[in-house]
Amino acid sequence: PGNRPTFCTDDGLNCIAITGRLHLDTAAYSFSPKSAGTTPQSVNDGINARRARLGLIGTFNKDWEYGVIVDAGGTTDGDVTLNNAYVAYKGVKGLLIQGGYIDVPYTLDEATSSNNIMFMERAASQVLATNLAAGDNRAAFGGQVFGDHYWVGAYVTGPTTGLNVNHSQPQPLGATFRAVGLPINNEVGTVLVGFDALYLAQTGGVTNNTLGISDRIEVRVDPATNALLNTGTMNFVNNARVLSGEAAVKFGSFMASGEYFDYNIQRSNGLSDLSFNGGYGQASYVITGEQHKYNTSAGAFGGINPARPVNFATGDLGAWELAVRYSYASLNDGVIRGGELKNTTVGVNWYVNQNMRFMFNWIHGTVDKFAVNSNVNTGADYDVFAMRTQVAF
Amino acid sequence: PGNRPTFCTDDGLNCIAITGRLHLDTAAYSFSPKSAGTTPQSVNDGINARRARLGLIGTFNKDWEYGVIVDAGGTTDGDVTLNNAYVAYKGVKGLLIQGGYIDVPYTLDEATSSNNIMFMERAASQVLATNLAAGDNRAAFGGQVFGDHYWVGAYVTGPTTGLNVNHSQPQPLGATFRAVGLPINNEVGTVLVGFDALYLAQTGGVTNNTLGISDRIEVRVDPATNALLNTGTMNFVNNARVLSGEAAVKFGSFMASGEYFDYNIQRSNGLSDLSFNGGYGQASYVITGEQHKYNTSAGAFGGINPARPVNFATGDLGAWELAVRYSYASLNDGVIRGGELKNTTVGVNWYVNQNMRFMFNWIHGTVDKFAVNSNVNTGADYDVFAMRTQVAF
Amino acid sequence: PGNRPTFCTDDGLNCIAITGRLHLDTAAYSFSPKSAGTTPQSVNDGINARRARLGLIGTFNKDWEYGVIVDAGGTTDGDVTLNNAYVAYKGVKGLLIQGGYIDVPYTLDEATSSNNIMFMERAASQVLATNLAAGDNRAAFGGQVFGDHYWVGAYVTGPTTGLNVNHSQPQPLGATFRAVGLPINNEVGTVLVGFDALYLAQTGGVTNNTLGISDRIEVRVDPATNALLNTGTMNFVNNARVLSGEAAVKFGSFMASGEYFDYNIQRSNGLSDLSFNGGYGQASYVITGEQHKYNTSAGAFGGINPARPVNFATGDLGAWELAVRYSYASLNDGVIRGGELKNTTVGVNWYVNQNMRFMFNWIHGTVDKFAVNSNVNTGADYDVFAMRTQVAF
Repeated sequence: PGNRPTFCTDDGLNCIAITGRLHLDTAAYSFSPKSAGTTPQSVNDGINARRARLGLIGTFNKDWEYGVIVDAGGTTDGDVTLNNAYVAYKGVKGLLIQGGYIDVPYTLDEATSSNNIMFMERAASQVLATNLAAGDNRAAFGGQVFGDHYWVGAYVTGPTTGLNVNHSQPQPLGATFRAVGLPINNEVGTVLVGFDALYLAQTGGVTNNTLGISDRIEVRVDPATNALLNTGTMNFVNNARVLSGEAAVKFGSFMASGEYFDYNIQRSNGLSDLSFNGGYGQASYVITGEQHKYNTSAGAFGGINPARPVNFATGDLGAWELAVRYSYASLNDGVIRGGELKNTTVGVNWYVNQNMRFMFNWIHGTVDKFAVNSNVNTGADYDVFAMRTQVAF
Repeated sequence: PGNRPTFCTDDGLNCIAITGRLHLDTAAYSFSPKSAGTTPQSVNDGINARRARLGLIGTFNKDWEYGVIVDAGGTTDGDVTLNNAYVAYKGVKGLLIQGGYIDVPYTLDEATSSNNIMFMERAASQVLATNLAAGDNRAAFGGQVFGDHYWVGAYVTGPTTGLNVNHSQPQPLGATFRAVGLPINNEVGTVLVGFDALYLAQTGGVTNNTLGISDRIEVRVDPATNALLNTGTMNFVNNARVLSGEAAVKFGSFMASGEYFDYNIQRSNGLSDLSFNGGYGQASYVITGEQHKYNTSAGAFGGINPARPVNFATGDLGAWELAVRYSYASLNDGVIRGGELKNTTVGVNWYVNQNMRFMFNWIHGTVDKFAVNSNVNTGADYDVFAMRTQVAF
Repeated sequence: PGNRPTFCTDDGLNCIAITGRLHLDTAAYSFSPKSAGTTPQSVNDGINARRARLGLIGTFNKDWEYGVIVDAGGTTDGDVTLNNAYVAYKGVKGLLIQGGYIDVPYTLDEATSSNNIMFMERAASQVLATNLAAGDNRAAFGGQVFGDHYWVGAYVTGPTTGLNVNHSQPQPLGATFRAVGLPINNEVGTVLVGFDALYLAQTGGVTNNTLGISDRIEVRVDPATNALLNTGTMNFVNNARVLSGEAAVKFGSFMASGEYFDYNIQRSNGLSDLSFNGGYGQASYVITGEQHKYNTSAGAFGGINPARPVNFATGDLGAWELAVRYSYASLNDGVIRGGELKNTTVGVNWYVNQNMRFMFNWIHGTVDKFAVNSNVNTGADYDVFAMRTQVAF
């Protein structure tokens, strides 16, 4: 986002910029558990500071970048935690090497800044993948090379920041890879296809072999919905890997993208391997004509800068975008019955000016969840109306 | 406060300002419990970072304001939590619409910035009211209109930020209203009268019908004094409302103000309603001649900007203010015996320069607290000598 | 460190500067417990954000300084806590009076900024001393006078910030003193000798007479090593005092320094006093020719500003420093057998530019620890390879 205050030394070699990001969410749920065995039985409307970040991003001696960003948002909003803290070398054009706590550039939707994502939350299938060994607040070291027609990056990753990291226990260890090609990338349009892989070599923690994967129902205001699409604790986990493909097309103000994920959990102690899968497809159209421009260094698409920022005096109403997504994820295999999620989301994004947008999401979805040899569905049907107020610079 | 670094784009439409606030308190208590049943039996002298805030406040496209402020102070000082995070529309003169985590402008003393309050702590009766559904760090949405002779605002309010908000439980829901008229507001003096109302529709939490109200003895260094003026948990609470009146007079360097609060708790399950009350009156005189100017957009009075900032070389000694307050609150009704507080506070405020002041408070007070049909007083007498070192910009 | 963005009012009297500090550590341990009774039996390699600070430091009306700095690093990195929050008067040349949460200038190595210390961690003997009543995040009030040939400072100290301060319990209370003389301090070289004292009058906490002293093995990534050099809880502690001497020599690019500490714990209830001791000696040489300049106001040595910052295009490789340290500490006296630590550390510091350095430490050490009348050694041998990535401004 623009309008980021930046201060440089007179020689221009050393700079510091102030960055901030505020995502304030509200949601109203219509929630119907499918049986008395569903957890939760009811959910609560409410508000949540999803992200409330402050930080500094700068450059030393032209070639070195650093950042320190803290976040007062999240599930337990109010508590300020470390978001990003990193050092990067960018002295060679088309190359970036970085280490520290970063937002690991794995998957198309994670490479897209949370300021620019199409819906309030990324699709469940994508969150399941990145939570294993990537995502935000993640200790990582790696690099990426990029140009107008490609982006390739690989990272070794460790634990995330936060209160739950006990440095006296084994720490998680993983790796990610992302390779993207753009056969078309010009003023008229962009076509992107890519391949991603994630490997979690050790899960960390006192046993260093337990793992649970889960996600909320694509709205985060009530965290209790995390119990729905949820494998529970899987024991004797040797490693986990995710293979996925991504594709996107941008043509003028129209954009469509999707990803498909195949998750595989390898277990010891005579337990069988587990295989899950999920994916999403989404499309949007900016009816006021602005475009999501491709960002070469991110290997992903940027946000909307409204041509006519809102000004009630002149009648300018900013930019408006319509979006729709279908999202699917299944965490069922063998005796692990984590449930199956099917969500359809309709979104309206109102870009007030270069730094603000309001997002409106209606999620219509269902989770089906049956224990083995049971015909009791402990899932739920739901419609969620959610709104985000976003400020970023 | 002035000297706030502010950076704008060349067109002046987008700005960002850095704000900070540091209130460092120390206190020495002379504390005499009235019986062996008093809790606490003794209190501890000490120090406390009451407020230690850093944040950004800015403007986008001239009409939109935002703020993100974190606070490392408070009762458990040291832990950094979200203080304010909001977006406001100010495109129409005399109107402000805002939402997010804000400092809800309810009551005269809360509308007065903590940088400018007359004593180190606001009066107990005021704290009891705002803690129900307003105050600082409060999720709220609402608006206000104001001019030289009026200020009217209404807000819907939710939970406060912080570690205690469990977003999986029902969240508190309330509303506030404040209307102020200024029959006189000119260079000579200001006369303000107003009416305030607060309604707490649901208390939140797992039962969503319990409530406890309490305050420390107008010094916050030892939080154990919170047990004195304290209703304990009240069950089956349907709702709570507070009606109050406020008045203030400023004439040159003299200022006096007061508020009276009537609290009413409505209960179900055959339990009777509860009625509490409290109030305060305070007056100050700036002996070096400076004045607390009325702030139209806040509907309250500002701070002191010393004409001659402290400079030991030239003998300038800043501005000095003397202040006195009487504060009363009773939380006794029926079988609820939360106690009765009577405090007299004498204060000296030394304004070193535009951004710094030292405050000295002597609180002489008593809490009387009798269980029903008991003549054992579990209250306490106390004298507290407290000092605040304040920096704000 | 330089390149700190600073913004002043036009008259230059009021300024604000943005400061940041990032110390990212990684470590690999080779750890051999000396018996099955050693705690811990194994330690974990990993990463840690040792310091991740953001803050503001400024001046009001020329004579008054203030600072508010928060830290997202530490043992439980990720949680943001208050680091420094203070106000200082500096209106008289060669004098500084300050109060608040500060980094107490006690001992030579603490007076040296963590940005400029020779090794990743200060020596164990120094940490044992400052943790009693000084160090960082410490409530303190005091002053210092200094000139080219002396530095003298004395402080009264209280609790540290953080989640563990319960303001309803007695707070710790102590005092520190440091006096330094510089018989030689010129362009050729600097010779410094000094005397330090610390007194802990009350330990704070619910009993207000218990105390434990401990340190990790001079690398902090796995906090479990804190159990090795550790007295456990000592009861009936009346007070503690530390007497120490310090000396340093700088000649061109060569620098050597050392401190010796004598710790004494006085106990009541018929328990004997306890006496511990420790010390360290360290030396470094900057092979690229830069020097650690003496900082008059700190009474300590500054960092290295590389003459030729790293630029791979021109072949400039920054500044390089070699360092070695021997560190010793014994916490054995009477029935208290806290163990004896002997560490040798070899370090390489690579100064990339004025604001960045990478540190490489190899710690070869041992802790011997025998219970009274036992010949079972519950200590450990270890080699630790550690690296720090440092950014500061």
